[in-house]
Amino acid sequence: MSTDAETIRYRAAAGESPAAVDLLDQTRIPAELVRLECTDLAQLHDAIVRLVVRGAPAIGIAAAYGVTLAPIDPASNPDSIRQCYYDAIEYLATSRPTAVNLFWALNRMRGIVESTEDAAIGELPPRLIEEARAIHEEDREMCRAMGRNAAPLLRDAKTVLTHCNAGGLATAQYGTALAPIYYLHENGHTLNVYADETRPLMQGARLTAWELSQAGIPVTVCTDSMAGSLMQRGLVDAVIVGSDRIAENGDVANKIGTYPLAVIAHYHNVPFYVVAPTNTFDLELQSGDLIPIEQRSEDEVRYTLGANSAVHAEGRMAVPREASVINPAFDVTPAELVAAIVTEQGVIERPTREKVQQHFAAITNPT
Amino acid sequence: MSTDAETIRYRAAAGESPAAVDLLDQTRIPAELVRLECTDLAQLHDAIVRLVVRGAPAIGIAAAYGVTLAPIDPASNPDSIRQCYYDAIEYLATSRPTAVNLFWALNRMRGIVESTEDAAIGELPPRLIEEARAIHEEDREMCRAMGRNAAPLLRDAKTVLTHCNAGGLATAQYGTALAPIYYLHENGHTLNVYADETRPLMQGARLTAWELSQAGIPVTVCTDSMAGSLMQRGLVDAVIVGSDRIAENGDVANKIGTYPLAVIAHYHNVPFYVVAPTNTFDLELQSGDLIPIEQRSEDEVRYTLGANSAVHAEGRMAVPREASVINPAFDVTPAELVAAIVTEQGVIERPTREKVQQHFAAITNPT
Repeated sequence: MSTDAETIRYRAAAGESPAAVDLLDQTRIPAELVRLECTDLAQLHDAIVRLVVRGAPAIGIAAAYGVTLAPIDPASNPDSIRQCYYDAIEYLATSRPTAVNLFWALNRMRGIVESTEDAAIGELPPRLIEEARAIHEEDREMCRAMGRNAAPLLRDAKTVLTHCNAGGLATAQYGTALAPIYYLHENGHTLNVYADETRPLMQGARLTAWELSQAGIPVTVCTDSMAGSLMQRGLVDAVIVGSDRIAENGDVANKIGTYPLAVIAHYHNVPFYVVAPTNTFDLELQSGDLIPIEQRSEDEVRYTLGANSAVHAEGRMAVPREASVINPAFDVTPAELVAAIVTEQGVIERPTREKVQQHFAAITNPT
Repeated sequence: MSTDAETIRYRAAAGESPAAVDLLDQTRIPAELVRLECTDLAQLHDAIVRLVVRGAPAIGIAAAYGVTLAPIDPASNPDSIRQCYYDAIEYLATSRPTAVNLFWALNRMRGIVESTEDAAIGELPPRLIEEARAIHEEDREMCRAMGRNAAPLLRDAKTVLTHCNAGGLATAQYGTALAPIYYLHENGHTLNVYADETRPLMQGARLTAWELSQAGIPVTVCTDSMAGSLMQRGLVDAVIVGSDRIAENGDVANKIGTYPLAVIAHYHNVPFYVVAPTNTFDLELQSGDLIPIEQRSEDEVRYTLGANSAVHAEGRMAVPREASVINPAFDVTPAELVAAIVTEQGVIERPTREKVQQHFAAITNPT
């Protein structure tokens, strides 16, 4: 991926130039490749809300860097400095409710603030930058590992279907669901990919189709409603998606429209795979019905996409004013419909609470 | 429904004024209520292709009236006059391939041409108008009867989900799938309706939401991908759709996205109903896989809706040029997923080839 298309970049403050979280503006793809530089917290918060940056891991990385934009006064006392960072963390946590990676990344940043003693308070800003860069780099490595771990599941596949965008644009690089597709492509096995367009914000049509095309992987866009007849006709060997949060029992929250794909895949005996890093698990939630589901603006459904996909009022009215509209951004797929969850640590086949617990026990207590 | 919003009107030639098939332009709803007057065959053919008029029964009615626009020369010999009508019928039959009602209506018009003898050739034009008006009026009555026949199936329902538009706008009046909803509403039982938006052309969001709102029936628009989680949460008591063609074994072709709804409804034990007049059956096709599926322009998926929903190049690019696109307009739901097919003649529960044959035998040989 060229540097210009890197999902997230960070520039530390230097001389007159403030620190900046520099985002590829995903609301403008594929029409144009432009970047948005966020130099304060409000800008970054707004960028996450508007989906300039989106995808569970990428949100976490952006928010981690975002903490370094907190308006601290280096001359104030250590408690005030720490409080300023805590306020920033709390504020960024309000940007989106479903992806748990956001809270996971912010918790790591909070840990750095908490563990920095008064005497070392001057080192807190560079330590936070270092932690955010570590989160960023670890994500790249986890995506690579997920690609390697998931690839064997697709060994005999010719064509896979994916939903929304769980690719390089949703992560540091490589992606989650798309990571094995890139991995196989680099190893001489190029899959054909059907990308659901993913209404209302078209992340599949706009983003997945764009990034796979850039990589030379053949991709065909279909409306979300076409996936059923593709599976009926035997044209899909596997469905592969990312996730925004996974409960302890293996229930998977992901972009709205994922659950019906899982049901249809089940009906057709097509394996349904979820690829997500271990930081996507929320082991405090016993099951998926406890995952908070973000309800987004009606306007995303009421209007067709405008020039900037996030500015729907510029689009055309698609729904008469008298009608109601719903717009949940995610749905939850029960574990029993999932053939396997793949993390950077390995594969959880036919996930259950026990298998998820074992997966995490093995990380905590490696043999 | 006010006269201005009538789906199809016909105006016979009078003095200088030519005959016209006057259509409510469904590509402009809900932004504006405008009508399109077609005074020649090419205009009407284009209007059917562009979905100015759409919905299986409405296409049949429009095409029947369309035959009366054939450019006959009353001074020419009977064979030439008949040939001119045959040419018009053949030409109109090329407008859309899936809805069998189009061919059914054109066949009725052909029957009038064939049965009019040389001596009566001067009466052929008024006879054709009379036949088209009969088709139009019969459709209104059949829709009413379908509403009456399907209403008992929804007696205990509070909320139903429908796909695309199978309402008054798709027929002479009342609709097919929406007919029982109107019928129950008039009888004091008002259902809540979820309308799938129905990508790519948004007939659910634009048309179903508009016509139900006009009638005072509460309607909520969701993207096609949201129907799954609605059923998962127990919010849908029945799914009810129309059809473009039904094979002898009860397999149902309908708007793309119908099949996945049937699978998900089956998974959740939600009854899946099809409402369609008997002229939607194609008894010459043994099963649904023989139904020709219209493949429409990629641009409908590549671009978001422009001002005129049929002119997609005016919309915004949603898919990068390098990616492929598919756009089948229909899918086929196998009979085993259908709880009942309701026609103007009655209800075929759990349809099978034998039950379909019995349904038609009873019409041919009423007891």
